[in-house]
Amino acid sequence: MAAIQKEIESGLVQEGTRLPPVRVIAHQIGVSKNTVQTAYQELESRGLIAAQARTGYYVERFSEPARKGTRSRVASAPALVDGKFPPVVKISKAKSKLISLGSVFIDQDLLPIAKVEQCFRSVLKAPGLHYLYDNQGFEPLRQAIAKRLNARGIVADPEHIMITTGSQQALDVVARSLRKRAIATENPAYGIGKLLFEMNQMKVTGLPLDPFHGIDLEKWDKAIATDRPAAVYLTTNFHNPTGYSYTSSELEAILALSQKYGFGLIEDDWGSDMLSFSEFRTPLRTLGGPNVLYINSFTKKLLPSLRIGYLLAEASMMPALLAAKRVGTLGNPTVIEAALFEFLDRGYFDTHLKSLHAALDERYQACLAALEGLMPEGVKWTKPGGGPVLWLELPKKIDLRDLSERLLAKGVALDMRTADWFFGTPHLHGVKIGYAQISSEKMKRGLEILADELKRLS
Amino acid sequence: MAAIQKEIESGLVQEGTRLPPVRVIAHQIGVSKNTVQTAYQELESRGLIAAQARTGYYVERFSEPARKGTRSRVASAPALVDGKFPPVVKISKAKSKLISLGSVFIDQDLLPIAKVEQCFRSVLKAPGLHYLYDNQGFEPLRQAIAKRLNARGIVADPEHIMITTGSQQALDVVARSLRKRAIATENPAYGIGKLLFEMNQMKVTGLPLDPFHGIDLEKWDKAIATDRPAAVYLTTNFHNPTGYSYTSSELEAILALSQKYGFGLIEDDWGSDMLSFSEFRTPLRTLGGPNVLYINSFTKKLLPSLRIGYLLAEASMMPALLAAKRVGTLGNPTVIEAALFEFLDRGYFDTHLKSLHAALDERYQACLAALEGLMPEGVKWTKPGGGPVLWLELPKKIDLRDLSERLLAKGVALDMRTADWFFGTPHLHGVKIGYAQISSEKMKRGLEILADELKRLS
Repeated sequence: MAAIQKEIESGLVQEGTRLPPVRVIAHQIGVSKNTVQTAYQELESRGLIAAQARTGYYVERFSEPARKGTRSRVASAPALVDGKFPPVVKISKAKSKLISLGSVFIDQDLLPIAKVEQCFRSVLKAPGLHYLYDNQGFEPLRQAIAKRLNARGIVADPEHIMITTGSQQALDVVARSLRKRAIATENPAYGIGKLLFEMNQMKVTGLPLDPFHGIDLEKWDKAIATDRPAAVYLTTNFHNPTGYSYTSSELEAILALSQKYGFGLIEDDWGSDMLSFSEFRTPLRTLGGPNVLYINSFTKKLLPSLRIGYLLAEASMMPALLAAKRVGTLGNPTVIEAALFEFLDRGYFDTHLKSLHAALDERYQACLAALEGLMPEGVKWTKPGGGPVLWLELPKKIDLRDLSERLLAKGVALDMRTADWFFGTPHLHGVKIGYAQISSEKMKRGLEILADELKRLS
Repeated sequence: MAAIQKEIESGLVQEGTRLPPVRVIAHQIGVSKNTVQTAYQELESRGLIAAQARTGYYVERFSEPARKGTRSRVASAPALVDGKFPPVVKISKAKSKLISLGSVFIDQDLLPIAKVEQCFRSVLKAPGLHYLYDNQGFEPLRQAIAKRLNARGIVADPEHIMITTGSQQALDVVARSLRKRAIATENPAYGIGKLLFEMNQMKVTGLPLDPFHGIDLEKWDKAIATDRPAAVYLTTNFHNPTGYSYTSSELEAILALSQKYGFGLIEDDWGSDMLSFSEFRTPLRTLGGPNVLYINSFTKKLLPSLRIGYLLAEASMMPALLAAKRVGTLGNPTVIEAALFEFLDRGYFDTHLKSLHAALDERYQACLAALEGLMPEGVKWTKPGGGPVLWLELPKKIDLRDLSERLLAKGVALDMRTADWFFGTPHLHGVKIGYAQISSEKMKRGLEILADELKRLS
């Protein structure tokens, strides 16, 4: 009785709150129902609670301070890290009327959504949804991925594969496992990767990449010699944001650097599946062997909302990598992993990639043709040979921020997160052009508006 | 031609590899098909490649070293963090014959798997699977969760809720966002939480918890005064592994400590939904107000393989917390989030919780009765009043490791990850008993075998 009175008077229990039924209190504190009944009656006589026929006792009075519970009684929220965090992208249900020229995503009209649905339905038909999850990822899916990799010349064992939430979690798992908190990556970098390293309190070295001239090996050598990163993280095919793909001789030179300075290599191979005639790209993992940590993803190529990627590593690295995954998410939803297995197992992915390659190639060629026909002098662009994105370099006198605002007013959006990509002052002056998400017609219209604006600003 | 010859001679291209068709090379490097054809013919005449009718050119010779690509040409894998990582739990398809006495999971027979399937089917029927994901989580789901929280007296706005991969990601997101790398939690601690803090290079302070006597406030005060953690992470209801639930006066004292020392509070409220008569537990978030970071999860109560939890925070904290989620996983699968929304929206969760409470209560009571009837003198146990788990304290002279091995030989498994829970030498000498995953009959059989062994060892 004293305890209930104290809680009511201190305002912890709000007015109108129903009190526990007599039998419940009796059960909880191990006394007889009569004892509880007596206590309630006494509280009622003190005007603190009121009995209502059939429904029990309710609190009548409470003290004011805690009334709405919105005043914080905790000293303060803990201080969180600072940073100019990139804005969060919201999903809009309707297709945006904006012509977005900078997306690396692939048009949903090119994705096999109906077939993914079929696979989900089939997985749901199996007796009972999968109850538990596998820390490392659904085993049949790991087997199917290993089979695919082996067919492409990448030696892989299902036990050395970890399924992740997109390639982002794969990168996170590696980053949080590195003993030495120092890593290097391309400059410009994949923005959320760079942010990841920085938020993980790592020293991050930028290795200059110019999509028109490739990598500057001398500068790479110097930067690595100075900063001695534990690992170098590279997107070897269709690098984001430049669209650049490494040449074999560059990959060879990087392997030689790795031996010279003793750093590990992390390859993000999201792009090799997006090349038309993709059979001819050799990943760094194939050249460098099993010590290259290899990351790939189904996000862009299959369906972004599935959030499935994977990490291929050596057996000896798995315990640390798995521990890193467990502390992050324990494991990922089994239904999704099982549906993707179904999709691979039925051969849908290969069929899909074939038609995707053709569609991407068409958009790529149309984009090149439009650029050729529209762009004023002083503008140049890369020819990545496929994939989702190329780099458009603009005359130095064009103010990119100003250009972006003018275009936005005309319904054309550029991806202006340049500050997230470059280390220090950018050595490139341009934007990425993503031809995978929008139709060739839309692309042409967007480039027309861009070209007009560039001419006006020249 | 020189480039292809070099690649073949260096062994980068394997014997039998089909070379790109003439039209592809022409397309890629921007020369005429005739030029490529001439180069191929020259390579053929040098014996490096061979033409096969209709199918193209193949590599004839290659140098030995790179033959299988399994030798690593990278200096080495990067050095990863050390640690005695807990073993990974594998899913076994068949229900194990082992009687597992220590699981905090809930029996799948008590979970509404058929209804979850219905919700998935309904989500898949909507036109097209959801293409994109929301960094913060599917908005209708956030709205549904906010509505539930508000109904329980926890003031919540959908914009202040982040959907996470289980409560584990919620904790990870908070841990990686704390500016000061120091945190405190119960001793014994939730094991994977403690590992998370340690892997995140945080100083971790253990705050002694004795499920028979509650928290030792004096020791908490001293430890906090010394280590000055940025935040204290507490599982206020059915703490794992002890099954302890904080009293209101303990929660009050913790709020006072927070004001005295200026630390933030992170509440893991996984348990309050698992209490029979659950309407009467007041979370710390209700008492402490909006500065308390609040974590909850559907993992145990709905379906472990869904991997959905959430984090409720203040508006000002959201940018940093969202950045932390993005670098970890970007976002989580929309299909899962949409199916859970459907489940909540149809009112299935409330119906389910009602029957779950009754079932858990029955198992709890049966477990208490079995302990009462079976345990020899010197053994004591807590009475958590519901939920999935209680703490069984054993006589000091019992060697726990030895006991565990003897029981395993008789088909009974204990959760012996004690080293992951305690800071230094354990002040408790016992095991957790989880009555939610196994039937009361199985529990009784397991406890009989445990009691026999205890008597033999006494």
